Amino acid sequence: MAAADKADAAAAFACAVRAAIDAKTKPVGALGRLETLAAQIAEIQQTLEPLAERCRLTVFAADHGIAAAGVSAYPSEVTRQMVLNFLAGGAAANVIARVLGVEITIVDAGVSGDAIEHPALLSHRIASRTRNAVNEPAMTASQCEQALDAGWKLGNEPGHEVACFGEMGIGNTSSASLVAAKLLGVPVEGLAGPGTGLDDAGLARKRRVLESAAARTPNELKPVQALSEYGGFESVMLAGAMLGAAEAGKLVLVDGFIATVSALAAVRMSSGVKRHLVFAHRSAEPGHGTVLDALDVDPLLDLDMRLGEGTGALLAWPLVQAAATMLRDMASFASAGVSERT
Amino acid sequence: MAAADKADAAAAFACAVRAAIDAKTKPVGALGRLETLAAQIAEIQQTLEPLAERCRLTVFAADHGIAAAGVSAYPSEVTRQMVLNFLAGGAAANVIARVLGVEITIVDAGVSGDAIEHPALLSHRIASRTRNAVNEPAMTASQCEQALDAGWKLGNEPGHEVACFGEMGIGNTSSASLVAAKLLGVPVEGLAGPGTGLDDAGLARKRRVLESAAARTPNELKPVQALSEYGGFESVMLAGAMLGAAEAGKLVLVDGFIATVSALAAVRMSSGVKRHLVFAHRSAEPGHGTVLDALDVDPLLDLDMRLGEGTGALLAWPLVQAAATMLRDMASFASAGVSERT
Repeated sequence: MAAADKADAAAAFACAVRAAIDAKTKPVGALGRLETLAAQIAEIQQTLEPLAERCRLTVFAADHGIAAAGVSAYPSEVTRQMVLNFLAGGAAANVIARVLGVEITIVDAGVSGDAIEHPALLSHRIASRTRNAVNEPAMTASQCEQALDAGWKLGNEPGHEVACFGEMGIGNTSSASLVAAKLLGVPVEGLAGPGTGLDDAGLARKRRVLESAAARTPNELKPVQALSEYGGFESVMLAGAMLGAAEAGKLVLVDGFIATVSALAAVRMSSGVKRHLVFAHRSAEPGHGTVLDALDVDPLLDLDMRLGEGTGALLAWPLVQAAATMLRDMASFASAGVSERT
Repeated sequence: MAAADKADAAAAFACAVRAAIDAKTKPVGALGRLETLAAQIAEIQQTLEPLAERCRLTVFAADHGIAAAGVSAYPSEVTRQMVLNFLAGGAAANVIARVLGVEITIVDAGVSGDAIEHPALLSHRIASRTRNAVNEPAMTASQCEQALDAGWKLGNEPGHEVACFGEMGIGNTSSASLVAAKLLGVPVEGLAGPGTGLDDAGLARKRRVLESAAARTPNELKPVQALSEYGGFESVMLAGAMLGAAEAGKLVLVDGFIATVSALAAVRMSSGVKRHLVFAHRSAEPGHGTVLDALDVDPLLDLDMRLGEGTGALLAWPLVQAAATMLRDMASFASAGVSERT
């Protein structure tokens, strides 16, 4: 099709979706953001009977060299301990995924120490941690490509219509703040927050560390540069997973601050990804708002959460199910014999 | 126990709940409002292992005499048609309840026309509609007691830990605006909104009708008076159901504007009800904010919805499940061997 014909077909399909939603037995617009969500899923799946029955959460874990600079309230060993907790089913993401019927996969993208041996763990270790981005690039260009590629393949796997991606990595709000600052060309200072719970003195130290790390490179960087200089193996893999999931026609539920920074990088790499993204929740981490504004999006939920692991993304899954099923199964005024407005 | 001992025991239990939540493998407070919700459920159930496995939605339907004054965008016959739609499983509430694993019960509290015969319909018809509250009390004191009592019994039924209550009744935002105005002693004008979708002229007419109806009685009324003068059989039954559910130790998910006005009446009748209520969503109906402020509550969700039927309440059910299961099943730092903050 020519571009103009494609645009016409897209507009016609959008009209058909709008008409189908408006024909349902409810006042026009009365389901609010569920209607917008239903339209988005219909558009991605190119059907008036969209499916949202299977959802998978993939949690990427890795360690950060910058953690050695004392930017987190928790020691680096917690990344590995939390991977073991995920594998034992005891973390928040496990519990919430179980309740909501979401399958969960844990990926070692580069956790410090020996490789963890566990039948349920996917190993895609790029290295045992990134380098300290205060002094040098967190990873090489080749490691960055490797992480993007591994993420792409995982995100692209079939078997579910909706994907959640989560992360675990002590130091990764620092990494994400730096990546966001360089993608947006803004000072990193305004993007630094308490993460897992720094006090004021800790936050002041984190700010100084981030400013020093940011000073190494130009104010604005291209996505792969920003990710190589300051990213984490887990967050780069997460960006790749979003690209792969979008390519597979999935809807992607975007978690909090770190996942949103990965989403920003993914959208900068391929703008077509954006229509596949549903921003699930507004994190209490203060930098999140800046990144959401840059993407011009408003998340579905605002529950004062700031945990990561994909927990916020998971909580939007029932909304997606409700929205898709509304469009698929709800009666119309005509089919139910309900009078329309006077 | 003496009152002081009771207060001590309650404070000690609240501390134990807080300690249990803080011991989970996550930074303190990182699950935000899920943590508050978990504490509320624990407190109601008086256990550190709260259950939220079964949820029932009860939808109360009835017609309103005031609809004859032209206060709605839809004709009165829609109430009955929507009851048939609920019974056939085609309404938004049905679809969302199915997706979320919630059982649904439909109650005829006073729908115009002959009684609907259907095996799944619970009949608690107070009359075939209320009287027109512009000219006279919507119901007698005896009808109001009858509706409260029928609701109480339905709300009090065992078999589920969490209850959602919904409503359907053309004209019921008008009725709810009047009840709220009289409970709060404020002009009804500020509580009138477009309901199912009035245009500006329609809303202006609705405002005039409501002002005329409000002028019949003193500015402020006691709960049963306000409900008798201006309530609907469905909304009064809904208030009774909240009282009965609270008495049974359930958590109650409060839907939008109309359900919140019923909640306000229930809390005014028995202040102990409030600890059982979870305000699920902020309706797009403008009067909702006033009533929420009067109750000093902030709903979990804000999705620009304004449908009623219990649809907003339903969408909070997964959050309640996640919160209760977090407290019940999530690992602690000690049990998972995860290091605490440095």
